[in-house]
Amino acid sequence: MSTRLSQLFVRTLREDPVDAEVASHRLLVRAGYIRRQAPGVFAWLPLGLKVRRKVEAIIREELDAFGAQEVLFPALLPKDPYEITNRWTEYGDGIFRLKDRKGADYLLAPTHEEVFTLLVKDLYSSYKDLPLSIYQIQDKYRDEARPRAGLLRGREFSMNDSYSFDYTDAGLALSYEQHRAAYERIFTRLGLEYVIVQADAGAMGGSKSEEFLHPTPIGEDTFVRSAGGYAANVEAFTTAAPAPMGFDSLPPAEVLETPDAPTIESLVALANSAHPRPDGREWTAADTLKNVVLALVSPDGTRELVVVGLPGDRDVDPKRAEVAFAPAEVEAATEADFAKNPLLVKGYIGPWVETGALLGEDSATGIRYLLDPRISDGTEWITGANIEGKHVFGLVAGRDFASDGVAEIANVTAGDEAPDGSGPVELARGMEIGHVFQLGRKYAEALGLKVLDENGKLVTVTMGSYGIGVTRVMAVIAEANHDEKGLIWPRNVAPFDVHVIAAGREESIFEVAQSLVESLESTGFDVLFDDRPKVSPGVKFGDAELLGVPLIVIVGRDAAAGMVELWDRASGERTSIPIADVAAALA
Amino acid sequence: MSTRLSQLFVRTLREDPVDAEVASHRLLVRAGYIRRQAPGVFAWLPLGLKVRRKVEAIIREELDAFGAQEVLFPALLPKDPYEITNRWTEYGDGIFRLKDRKGADYLLAPTHEEVFTLLVKDLYSSYKDLPLSIYQIQDKYRDEARPRAGLLRGREFSMNDSYSFDYTDAGLALSYEQHRAAYERIFTRLGLEYVIVQADAGAMGGSKSEEFLHPTPIGEDTFVRSAGGYAANVEAFTTAAPAPMGFDSLPPAEVLETPDAPTIESLVALANSAHPRPDGREWTAADTLKNVVLALVSPDGTRELVVVGLPGDRDVDPKRAEVAFAPAEVEAATEADFAKNPLLVKGYIGPWVETGALLGEDSATGIRYLLDPRISDGTEWITGANIEGKHVFGLVAGRDFASDGVAEIANVTAGDEAPDGSGPVELARGMEIGHVFQLGRKYAEALGLKVLDENGKLVTVTMGSYGIGVTRVMAVIAEANHDEKGLIWPRNVAPFDVHVIAAGREESIFEVAQSLVESLESTGFDVLFDDRPKVSPGVKFGDAELLGVPLIVIVGRDAAAGMVELWDRASGERTSIPIADVAAALA
Repeated sequence: MSTRLSQLFVRTLREDPVDAEVASHRLLVRAGYIRRQAPGVFAWLPLGLKVRRKVEAIIREELDAFGAQEVLFPALLPKDPYEITNRWTEYGDGIFRLKDRKGADYLLAPTHEEVFTLLVKDLYSSYKDLPLSIYQIQDKYRDEARPRAGLLRGREFSMNDSYSFDYTDAGLALSYEQHRAAYERIFTRLGLEYVIVQADAGAMGGSKSEEFLHPTPIGEDTFVRSAGGYAANVEAFTTAAPAPMGFDSLPPAEVLETPDAPTIESLVALANSAHPRPDGREWTAADTLKNVVLALVSPDGTRELVVVGLPGDRDVDPKRAEVAFAPAEVEAATEADFAKNPLLVKGYIGPWVETGALLGEDSATGIRYLLDPRISDGTEWITGANIEGKHVFGLVAGRDFASDGVAEIANVTAGDEAPDGSGPVELARGMEIGHVFQLGRKYAEALGLKVLDENGKLVTVTMGSYGIGVTRVMAVIAEANHDEKGLIWPRNVAPFDVHVIAAGREESIFEVAQSLVESLESTGFDVLFDDRPKVSPGVKFGDAELLGVPLIVIVGRDAAAGMVELWDRASGERTSIPIADVAAALA
Repeated sequence: MSTRLSQLFVRTLREDPVDAEVASHRLLVRAGYIRRQAPGVFAWLPLGLKVRRKVEAIIREELDAFGAQEVLFPALLPKDPYEITNRWTEYGDGIFRLKDRKGADYLLAPTHEEVFTLLVKDLYSSYKDLPLSIYQIQDKYRDEARPRAGLLRGREFSMNDSYSFDYTDAGLALSYEQHRAAYERIFTRLGLEYVIVQADAGAMGGSKSEEFLHPTPIGEDTFVRSAGGYAANVEAFTTAAPAPMGFDSLPPAEVLETPDAPTIESLVALANSAHPRPDGREWTAADTLKNVVLALVSPDGTRELVVVGLPGDRDVDPKRAEVAFAPAEVEAATEADFAKNPLLVKGYIGPWVETGALLGEDSATGIRYLLDPRISDGTEWITGANIEGKHVFGLVAGRDFASDGVAEIANVTAGDEAPDGSGPVELARGMEIGHVFQLGRKYAEALGLKVLDENGKLVTVTMGSYGIGVTRVMAVIAEANHDEKGLIWPRNVAPFDVHVIAAGREESIFEVAQSLVESLESTGFDVLFDDRPKVSPGVKFGDAELLGVPLIVIVGRDAAAGMVELWDRASGERTSIPIADVAAALA
């Protein structure tokens, strides 16, 4: 096949679009691949659609290869299935909702677990029908609060979502492994560097979960990895809790004067000057217990206060908190919250007062109290005494105070120990490009998907769910493959195999170029031919660099002598070769 | 390629789905091609998706062949462009509307004229860029009042919509012709009988418009055709108006007593008995002028009364009225409407009273008055005298009454003359499968799409819009190709080339079948292999008939002797042939 640039529906732009923050957005718009229709909503021009279809084809091939089967669901789905699993409510503002003319509720689905579950329930009833892996490549919708970065975080996007159905845990593990391996092959074929990290499985109610992250400074996700091989999304990082220690030999806690010390910094300074440690070591922020008051707002609107205690050298990581408390949203406590809880003395909050517990569900305030894993039994702390200007020193966890549970919401820092003992971690940024997930039986249970097993007994099916953001992946490829002049597509997804430029004014150059294009076409190459008659070579070269076909052939002055230039877009290298050798050089 | 039926995600059903009115719906569900998700909204199972993709591929090939280029728009679009063309309002309840989290208005687009126009405006600015034909194959939405008949009238459906852009009328005519010819090739390749009929162009504001109808008794459209070659959608049929005649020699009208004659039937009977025609011929309903009071409700909610006069032997055709008055909705006048207009005497309404005009914008009532084209100047009528129990006889059009315009809303009957003089028409029913449309400059004007012409002058672009209902076409193919046992796909769109059945219990039969499948696969056939071990031949044959792969190979008892049966699904004919000849017989 060949396409004449003079006929192609495209227009390259010299200026960056005003709203473009990242290279992929800037270049995909400038090179005429996509055009904005609304915030986070794009139209696909011929070049963009060609690349998108190639990404989709690679995904299809690798999923089909292990026996997954393609189906297609509508974007518009009724509320009912999502009501049963409570996701209708949990999604909050994050989805598009609408009513039909009869007033029935619908959503534009952001993911399809419920209806895939129901479809399998509709068709299958026996263990003999399983395992089953079915998938779709389909346009999805999320009403993002801040759609941004072009295709990287859109409100409409193409996803490949895949679902596996098994009736044993071992079966699920195998289906999961098949998808995971297929994803590895897909990203390898797409030429995309990736790291597989442990991900938080909580929100979807499942067990094992891993993300494929593409390491990039513009990534929205932070992940940690150790030299010993541990890798996790920062939301999934777990803190190694110190073993509980005895506290029989520890002295009793004492309340000391700490005027004007409502912050950790001022408290540490004051403690070192007014109440130095008996052992001579300096107090540090890590010796203090900071109690942060948070408000959790459930999707149904109810608001609950919770206090989280963590070492004073740590902060609450908003993303870890979001995941830990999902589907509730996490807000800072307001003045109104404090006004309703006069026992909480701002800047001096602690779990203990002389008359007993102040924090915790059974305490004087009744406020749920959660602790960072580092606050293990037998550890000693300086913390607020719930009296203006006073802190309690030597307060011992497990002796003087207790909690209602653990909260993994402290920020992770480079050098923290990996929970598997593989050494200290470093932090890096990545963009999620894929997700594999052992959902388990949550959806099958909620929606009644059971099959008869070998013994004629009804058993609940166990599921996996797997996703690749197709349009996002395309943008990530563009991020990873560009320079200041434009895009540089990997060959597997390039819109064309080769870009032939007729560079010059002479009729003969166009004739040679035309015949080269025809010969390449007949050899099976998909050729873009810049045949524009009155456009200067310089403009053509600039457009070629912007469009990003990886191999360019310049038919110019030497064409008469049977020579053309082969231009490698990535390296910039230009080599003069005989026309007869072009096809071989491209292959 | 080959697919084992034991692995395929499908389940055939013996029972018809309760809501299925038509064969395509019944069979596509029973054979496991589609599954209902909501009224008019379906999920696509692997078999259904395969057929759909084949239909899409044929459309793509024929559009690409003449240089049309594929793009892709989102379904979710902002209100603004549709507001400019007033379609946001005109669509009424017929579309899905929604708001995002910021309260901005969106729609799920039923068609994309506006955004295609804006995209071309964004990219192009010169006549040199034209002609341009761009298209998409995309999921569309309409909030149908009565979604029905499965894929034939869904609320979500896949469409191929295509748009042409030219700067001269001659250019538009050529682009139109290219699309029309491509559509002919597409429907021919799909094996679908079609009639190209003139269609009403009014609602879309354009000029020339034709529909591709597939003749079928379950069609939603009525069309007319003459032996001489005229063909039109009934909404587009135009009545040949008789030439105006002089009326100098005609006697004056006279008001006569017609007690208890509020209907045409009673009036004709009474006229013949009490006021026989002077020339001895009997009065018929065609001699009477019936005046029908309609209420037109605009999309903005305003309600206007209009009276339409038509010969008494005709009725208002609701579909013709709908098209004639679009985008207003047509309702019968209510008692309240009559109460507000006491001059209208029900059963005795006419355009004339002794004091002057009663109907018409400048009349006593001020009500707009429109006439059927048959009421031409010089024709004489019996019509209501606007007095209970009285009619006026010999009322002459053009002499005694006039109108505000013509209304083509009378029903068309077999035997009516085609407007092009090609003889009487017959009526038939058809299902719209395609539409080609010269939109003209309406959208380009509204949205400011202009280009510089050869003389450097800005000219407004002229557009065509073209559509094929992809999912509907698939259902129409199923309607046209089935019997009581199941589907019978044409080879071009069949989900598989051949369906091989291992029919028997012996291991050897399965081995022969397996090796046949492998050899067919290596020859390039896409094979469905019914390898189910414990399913009886009878059940397998029934499933094969239901699934509808056109060619079936039965590997049974004679397999050991090297013979199999080739079963033609359409004719039912079974031929015994040597295994070695199967590939040749299929080709």
